[in-house]
Amino acid sequence: MFRSALLIMTLCAVPSSADEGMWTYDDFPSAQVKKAYGFGPDAKWLEKVRLGSLRLANGCSASFVSRDGLVLTNHHCVRACVEDLSSAERDLLSVPFVAKAREQEERCAKTEANQLISITDVSERVLAAVKGQSGAGFQKKLKAETAAIEQECAQGDVKKRCDVVTLFNGARFHLYTYRRFQDVRLVFAPEFAMAAFGGDPDNFNFPRYGVDVALLRVWEDGKPRPTPEALKVKAGGANENELVFTSGHPGGTERGRTVAHLELQRDVVLPWTLLYLAELRGRLDQWMQGDPERTRVTRSRLRSVENGLKALRGRQQALVAPGFLEQKRADETALREKAPEATRGGWELVAKGAAAMRPLLPRYRLLEAAEAFDSELFAYARLLVRDREEGAKANAERLPEYSEARRPALVQQLSGAVPVSKPLEKATLTWSLTRLRNLLGADDALVREVLGKQSPDDLATQLVDGSALDDAAVRKEVLEGKRALDSDPMLVFAKKVDAAARAARKQVEDDFDAQVKRGYEQISEAKKAVVGASGYPDATFTLRLSYGQVKGWGEVKPFTTVGGFFDRLTGKAPFAASDAWLKAKAGLKPATRFDLATTNDIIGGNSGSPLVDKAGDVVGLVFDGNLASLGGNYGYDGRENRATAVHADLIYAALEKVYGAGHLAAELKR
Amino acid sequence: MFRSALLIMTLCAVPSSADEGMWTYDDFPSAQVKKAYGFGPDAKWLEKVRLGSLRLANGCSASFVSRDGLVLTNHHCVRACVEDLSSAERDLLSVPFVAKAREQEERCAKTEANQLISITDVSERVLAAVKGQSGAGFQKKLKAETAAIEQECAQGDVKKRCDVVTLFNGARFHLYTYRRFQDVRLVFAPEFAMAAFGGDPDNFNFPRYGVDVALLRVWEDGKPRPTPEALKVKAGGANENELVFTSGHPGGTERGRTVAHLELQRDVVLPWTLLYLAELRGRLDQWMQGDPERTRVTRSRLRSVENGLKALRGRQQALVAPGFLEQKRADETALREKAPEATRGGWELVAKGAAAMRPLLPRYRLLEAAEAFDSELFAYARLLVRDREEGAKANAERLPEYSEARRPALVQQLSGAVPVSKPLEKATLTWSLTRLRNLLGADDALVREVLGKQSPDDLATQLVDGSALDDAAVRKEVLEGKRALDSDPMLVFAKKVDAAARAARKQVEDDFDAQVKRGYEQISEAKKAVVGASGYPDATFTLRLSYGQVKGWGEVKPFTTVGGFFDRLTGKAPFAASDAWLKAKAGLKPATRFDLATTNDIIGGNSGSPLVDKAGDVVGLVFDGNLASLGGNYGYDGRENRATAVHADLIYAALEKVYGAGHLAAELKR
Repeated sequence: MFRSALLIMTLCAVPSSADEGMWTYDDFPSAQVKKAYGFGPDAKWLEKVRLGSLRLANGCSASFVSRDGLVLTNHHCVRACVEDLSSAERDLLSVPFVAKAREQEERCAKTEANQLISITDVSERVLAAVKGQSGAGFQKKLKAETAAIEQECAQGDVKKRCDVVTLFNGARFHLYTYRRFQDVRLVFAPEFAMAAFGGDPDNFNFPRYGVDVALLRVWEDGKPRPTPEALKVKAGGANENELVFTSGHPGGTERGRTVAHLELQRDVVLPWTLLYLAELRGRLDQWMQGDPERTRVTRSRLRSVENGLKALRGRQQALVAPGFLEQKRADETALREKAPEATRGGWELVAKGAAAMRPLLPRYRLLEAAEAFDSELFAYARLLVRDREEGAKANAERLPEYSEARRPALVQQLSGAVPVSKPLEKATLTWSLTRLRNLLGADDALVREVLGKQSPDDLATQLVDGSALDDAAVRKEVLEGKRALDSDPMLVFAKKVDAAARAARKQVEDDFDAQVKRGYEQISEAKKAVVGASGYPDATFTLRLSYGQVKGWGEVKPFTTVGGFFDRLTGKAPFAASDAWLKAKAGLKPATRFDLATTNDIIGGNSGSPLVDKAGDVVGLVFDGNLASLGGNYGYDGRENRATAVHADLIYAALEKVYGAGHLAAELKR
Repeated sequence: MFRSALLIMTLCAVPSSADEGMWTYDDFPSAQVKKAYGFGPDAKWLEKVRLGSLRLANGCSASFVSRDGLVLTNHHCVRACVEDLSSAERDLLSVPFVAKAREQEERCAKTEANQLISITDVSERVLAAVKGQSGAGFQKKLKAETAAIEQECAQGDVKKRCDVVTLFNGARFHLYTYRRFQDVRLVFAPEFAMAAFGGDPDNFNFPRYGVDVALLRVWEDGKPRPTPEALKVKAGGANENELVFTSGHPGGTERGRTVAHLELQRDVVLPWTLLYLAELRGRLDQWMQGDPERTRVTRSRLRSVENGLKALRGRQQALVAPGFLEQKRADETALREKAPEATRGGWELVAKGAAAMRPLLPRYRLLEAAEAFDSELFAYARLLVRDREEGAKANAERLPEYSEARRPALVQQLSGAVPVSKPLEKATLTWSLTRLRNLLGADDALVREVLGKQSPDDLATQLVDGSALDDAAVRKEVLEGKRALDSDPMLVFAKKVDAAARAARKQVEDDFDAQVKRGYEQISEAKKAVVGASGYPDATFTLRLSYGQVKGWGEVKPFTTVGGFFDRLTGKAPFAASDAWLKAKAGLKPATRFDLATTNDIIGGNSGSPLVDKAGDVVGLVFDGNLASLGGNYGYDGRENRATAVHADLIYAALEKVYGAGHLAAELKR
């Protein structure tokens, strides 16, 4: 399934293939689409669809689908919420959740939804601030200016979210202003096994039979928010060859990256991450085997790990495909030769940054990205420790995620009362500390300081058992300064490793990020001079519109059907239907469309995007892509690249005939 | 630790660094060594050390160290035997094994030792046979000629092992004739935890404290074989800067590979293997956690998996090190430009083979390399099924491992009565079948045929529980044709998947191996024409001699000591001493040397090699290399590349003062 894990900003790409492009709303190629398909969105259409679109801050997309704040997204986008609402006695991932009335809707403690209100170009201001800077100086100025712009925009209003977004990797900066919704409630979710039907073997494959659908509702001031801007879910859905759009938030692409930057990915970043995920997958799966309670608290994370592994493996394979980098290199050489003299150093800057990054990755990932401290309690502890330290600084000096404007998100993450599984915490912290020692060696100074003569197991047990940070009330007291940082062993531990983690981060920011941003700024100038300013920027988890067609490829048909679903059952996971589906079988029409494939150019982060027709109605719900789409990180190939979506008819059939949620289907239809 | 996993044959390398080279005994650069160190081995020295050296057929090296057939090697080279001799009631990996008398020595059912008797150049005969052939035709002729030469040599004598070895990857072929010993008995083994002291974090690191030592004895006709050719283990061992040699069997290097061939490794082969091992490591480790019996049957394999993972990860990192492939490419271009016209197609042939291999790897590894059928019972079943089929063919037509000359090794593998853990079998077979479905997809024809509507778990349980192939007597009956191939579900299963596995193998042999061999033949000609025939061939698990010095690097001293060992203890695995060592502490001298580092150029397969001084005496026992040595697969850098060995003094101290094996120490000294 598609989901944005990291938001990585890069450079513009000039579309070279029909249906290619993750277009910003202010630069959508309507004329081009009209030429190809006989219809091009006008300003009114664009505004309607933009306001009907939502971003979920955890890395997903969604849309308003009723006038009373009902939100359509994927089950995998709300899986963490469903898990948080569960307990050993009440396992909401195993059974469907249907709120029969609004009072039964349950709040997702950590879910934030954002509706894009405006985009302002702040490039001149930011570029003026960093002019002539490099390395640490560049980072300092950039951070200060960003914090100031965001703070001026938000002005302490918790309902406003203001993000300065780096576009074209440093060439342009836009201020995105969102309406922020933090009271988001769960309305409907099918069984996890149906949402992820087919498990890892079917993931990123097609034909596919995922019921990857969920409904949330945005509340405000204690009642559902009125949302006249909602889109309509159209019964009948999409048909073969129909023109369709996706409006959503692709998390990140690397289509504009230089060869040296891509080689860093191929040689260092992807191998590191893939090996991490592969081992973690084995451990999580094995740890939970045969133990229902362990399974309950682990399966969602396992699914995320498996999904990431398959997605990144596909990406790695795309990157090493014969001829791919050679073509990139040839294009790069051609561009450099034509580029203005003053911009030619851009490629060297990126290469220099990439070279500097190679040896920095292990400590960055282990310490700052906290791979070595795999624990939710540790994550809370770090947020609390850093919030205390950063809060004492001027706004402009803080790490960005602790700035005034970004604090509402931080407070929500810390104050939501959600369960923590201490057995799972101990297991993951033990593994991750063991891995730290394996990778840095027993003689590394930090390893010695962290472990002393303790084993990873002993230390993890001591920290997890001794910590009270699983209690939201305790976290709130620490957050508000009413509890000391030495009051909890996990806080003490987070403080102990923080200097090393911050140092690893600073080195990456100064020696890699700053170089690379400056390099891409020059490369962007070179492209403007040589090929003009056309094209779409690489994805940055901001709202984009893509266009395409409902279409199969090769032997693969564009639709699956309810009949096909029942044929695929083996009775064994991951090919077993839930009781609700088995019971509903007689009442379902075999010909009803289930999932579909389209040529839309999407990527992780687009999960939950509405698939919209010419009328601006929702005809499907994007949840994944096919295997070929995994290379979409580096480029789009319309011959095989496909997005996959749940068909609108399946959404209605599931609500009305499987899950007894006719009242929700009716709300969608109003 | 060092161990050869795959025997991969490649091309000659011209040494460019002092102490570089894994030299064949018939081409050792004595004059060069004499110039550098004031001593160069003469013919007598070479013969003495060659006859004192042994190969263990499972991928290790060893030496005769007493006149009564006593053999010195690493614990990790006999770990499988120790495990095979264990049971739930008698766990020989947890306690030291010391045979107090010869009658107490226990046979290693699957261990074969080989002593090199002669080398014959058969290049002309083989090259004449394959002349003008390519693809399938090439493979057919090569197989037939190899089988004929080996058969003529062995003439049915089980005590003779005759292997045609491909050198310079197809440019030359040598017939290696060995004396074969199949009655090899365990005499001494320390605790696994002491042999592998420091676990994964210390593996491939130095300072190091491994007691990676074991003693075997070669028996013949019911008594210890007299071995007047044995080497002496010298008390006092090696000193700093001393000239030392290793005589052993490096398994394989890739120093002569073309860039296209190395890119195949970097892009396809290494990522595949690393991800496989990483997940398997997580699964095995987690599966055995907290369960003593599972731990007993799993820890040895886990250690092998972790070792392979770390070794290949180091190799991958060497391959992507900045500048490495660029230098290779520049050297290659320079050579091509000077090469005779007729040889220039060699590089294209290798590149073509490498390109063909990319899509073939998954099915080859899953099916033919049996990654999808991870089970010892399956391995037995395949050998039996294929032996029956191949046995019905003419010798020249058979798969090489089923030829007449190679049959004694096959019979030994099948007839040894060793335990099989059915719980572990079920776990590994379930995972590997699950992985097959994940990687090929649920709609793959073979996956459908194999699994049908069964889950991997169900199928694995049915096959393992239903099979009687864990009984050596049953295997013997099948081998001798007294039991039908449809008499056991695992045999039926092995037969069912065999066509697909053979097809995957044939495609690799015809489209990759044949192309690459022909390509390297031409490249070898090119090198001969341009730089002459000097240099050592890439390693091929045949006997090689390397020279070097006892030496640290940077801040690292060349020796560790008994005192340092006791300082390193934390009391927790993998840094906990065994009871025997704790009890012996008072009687041990802190200054006694423990492990040491040398500049010798070695690689996996050299494990167990004697470290020999000018007098031809054993002064240490090679068991590993440092992290820098992992790049040794692609090249040797004397500044940092180090072999690591157990010091002779530690061997004596362990036998005499820790393990109560003074009688063995005395035998070594006689």
